Amino acid sequence: MSTTHAPFAQRMNSLQKSFIREILKVTENQHVISFAGGLPNPDFFPAAEMAEVTHELLQREGAQVLQYSTSEGYLPLREWIAQHYQQRDGLDIHADDILILNGSQQGLDLIGKVFLNPQDVALVERPGYLGAIQAFSFYQPRFVGVPLEQDGVDIAALKAGLAHNPKLFYTVPTFQNPSGITYSAEKRHRVAELLGDHPTILVEDDPYNELRFMGEDLLPLRYYRPNNTILLGSFSKMVAPGLRLGWLCAAKPILEKLIIAKQAADLHSNYLAQRVVHRYLQHYDLEAHLQKIRAAYGQQRRLMVSLIEQYFPPEVEYTRPEGGMFLWVTLPSHLSAMDLFELATKHQVAFVPGQAFYVDGGGHNTLRLNFSNASEAKIEEGIKRLAQAIKQLLHEQKNSVATV
Amino acid sequence: MSTTHAPFAQRMNSLQKSFIREILKVTENQHVISFAGGLPNPDFFPAAEMAEVTHELLQREGAQVLQYSTSEGYLPLREWIAQHYQQRDGLDIHADDILILNGSQQGLDLIGKVFLNPQDVALVERPGYLGAIQAFSFYQPRFVGVPLEQDGVDIAALKAGLAHNPKLFYTVPTFQNPSGITYSAEKRHRVAELLGDHPTILVEDDPYNELRFMGEDLLPLRYYRPNNTILLGSFSKMVAPGLRLGWLCAAKPILEKLIIAKQAADLHSNYLAQRVVHRYLQHYDLEAHLQKIRAAYGQQRRLMVSLIEQYFPPEVEYTRPEGGMFLWVTLPSHLSAMDLFELATKHQVAFVPGQAFYVDGGGHNTLRLNFSNASEAKIEEGIKRLAQAIKQLLHEQKNSVATV
Repeated sequence: MSTTHAPFAQRMNSLQKSFIREILKVTENQHVISFAGGLPNPDFFPAAEMAEVTHELLQREGAQVLQYSTSEGYLPLREWIAQHYQQRDGLDIHADDILILNGSQQGLDLIGKVFLNPQDVALVERPGYLGAIQAFSFYQPRFVGVPLEQDGVDIAALKAGLAHNPKLFYTVPTFQNPSGITYSAEKRHRVAELLGDHPTILVEDDPYNELRFMGEDLLPLRYYRPNNTILLGSFSKMVAPGLRLGWLCAAKPILEKLIIAKQAADLHSNYLAQRVVHRYLQHYDLEAHLQKIRAAYGQQRRLMVSLIEQYFPPEVEYTRPEGGMFLWVTLPSHLSAMDLFELATKHQVAFVPGQAFYVDGGGHNTLRLNFSNASEAKIEEGIKRLAQAIKQLLHEQKNSVATV
Repeated sequence: MSTTHAPFAQRMNSLQKSFIREILKVTENQHVISFAGGLPNPDFFPAAEMAEVTHELLQREGAQVLQYSTSEGYLPLREWIAQHYQQRDGLDIHADDILILNGSQQGLDLIGKVFLNPQDVALVERPGYLGAIQAFSFYQPRFVGVPLEQDGVDIAALKAGLAHNPKLFYTVPTFQNPSGITYSAEKRHRVAELLGDHPTILVEDDPYNELRFMGEDLLPLRYYRPNNTILLGSFSKMVAPGLRLGWLCAAKPILEKLIIAKQAADLHSNYLAQRVVHRYLQHYDLEAHLQKIRAAYGQQRRLMVSLIEQYFPPEVEYTRPEGGMFLWVTLPSHLSAMDLFELATKHQVAFVPGQAFYVDGGGHNTLRLNFSNASEAKIEEGIKRLAQAIKQLLHEQKNSVATV
């Protein structure tokens, strides 16, 4: 089918297909050990329980659970989420503050739509979550990167960023994607203090919170800064991602606008999935389920870190996440993670080069490793292969320096 | 929770909560007979079949069907859709031309995002589908309405509209929402001829196509104008709406942009639902299922029309749809459908006043009636009540004219 030149909107000019998406093609080769994806471990999806509750709901209430429903989402599910925040964190969040989404990713699109004019400033962490950068990009903001330190955002840089009067500051404060770092309680407090009553919306994306396998639980940023904060959550890592169920919490004047945007975007999220997840949460022990996931991911993370310690050259740095699914590797600054990627492909191991996570350049010598979705045997073999590739790259670089 | 003034994007200034949404609140009163909604009849949702296939998929492939998946959607489901168009209409559509959506509504949002700059002209039917008007509104186009006649769009008006160099022309050519009219084969041909190689995207929204209960099947506009046409479809009326599964078909250069937008919007649509619907289509007889729906909706539409003939005053006009879920009533021009709505509420019957479906004013004396989601007893009682309200309004108007 031939097509005359299609008159796309200006916002499409600078958008590319996801870099990660292209990277992931390499991993389709079954001999490649991939630390590139961001997938939860499917061994822990509660498939049998889902089969049970879905069958029961469809048999008993089929006509109802397959019908159109409300844009806000299923009320008892929103009540469960509110109660979860109340009990776990003492947050003053109620069902009326919650909008159910197609994964928290949809929340990023709706937030961009509701808040961002072209050229508005959006503060994002560097490195920052690529899905947020992509979602916001459609609304043509001016991104300003705020560097991360081991215990959270660089406060001086955040202060400088706020001088641009940003519309929003987007952060993943707990087990951040891609870096794996977590904001300390002190940093959370200082971020909240700095934002204060500033009209900048704090977008707190918190999909990994329940995946802590070491260290102590921390309160969400939303606790320290209740006003002008939008808190995003997800069932993707707690239950299963294929259902595409997440949520956001926001104050009424903001939520009203987001509901209008949600309604225009797709009327409502899959209603059967909402009913199924709610029934699952009612009838099964989520905490026991989460403990199994935490134990497994903790074991995988400990193994990966100990292998990195053992096999990587000492000049390579890396984060030591207390939860989540990712860790972050920094090569010596004269090495390129893109070069390493090419070399690693030959060694049949894959990762995501870090530069895609930087809105304003940089990160050429960084990379992201996923530890949640690989067996211990694959972690062992994969890290050994990656270590080989790094050593080879270091060696080649030394030789090339020597010959100049 | 108090909130300082939130700095919303300019695009939010003119947007309101859906008018229909507010209207539907009246229908929450259980004594009200509502012809206002747009719901399929839940008696025909294949709940038992869904229970069966879902249970089997989750038991057998739970880890896989609950995992993240591709933005384009499940390939065998896209193959089914392509084959359906090939066999039914002889369309040259293949799996690679198809993107799976959260209901075809999401397609409207993505199309707006990919094509519309602020002030771009969007041609829409008058009356036109409200969900499309809402979705496009976020991208701040200038809407130009193109009047509908009994056999489709007014060709002279479409020609005049094309003089504005519109980015797109949005149409529901078969059993239109809200009017219930269907474009004749002649009109389809003339629309295609008129659009020709013009860069204007023809957005053909076709969710009701399979719900024809009288008359003869017609080919989609896409058949007559393959280039620069985006064809939208949905499982909402064929299978069930709560699953939120629809699709769009577009040529590769357009589809690529829409996939990037889909990915940023929510990564992908519910994967379990895609697998379930595909398996349902493989293992059950869709055609037999559709015949039951057509028979029931046809019966409901015949009853509604015959009651309107019998009870409405002769000066009231109405459409005689050959399929779909809606018919359209035009009151004498000195009557207001909003006044009728208030009066009808007292008679405990509801509908949607037509003016919301007009992007550029007008339609004050029109209303939409849904016939798919009411029992025969409710149709009989509801049309009688509505006839009473119309007669009362006519009487009051005559008296008020007489007393001036």
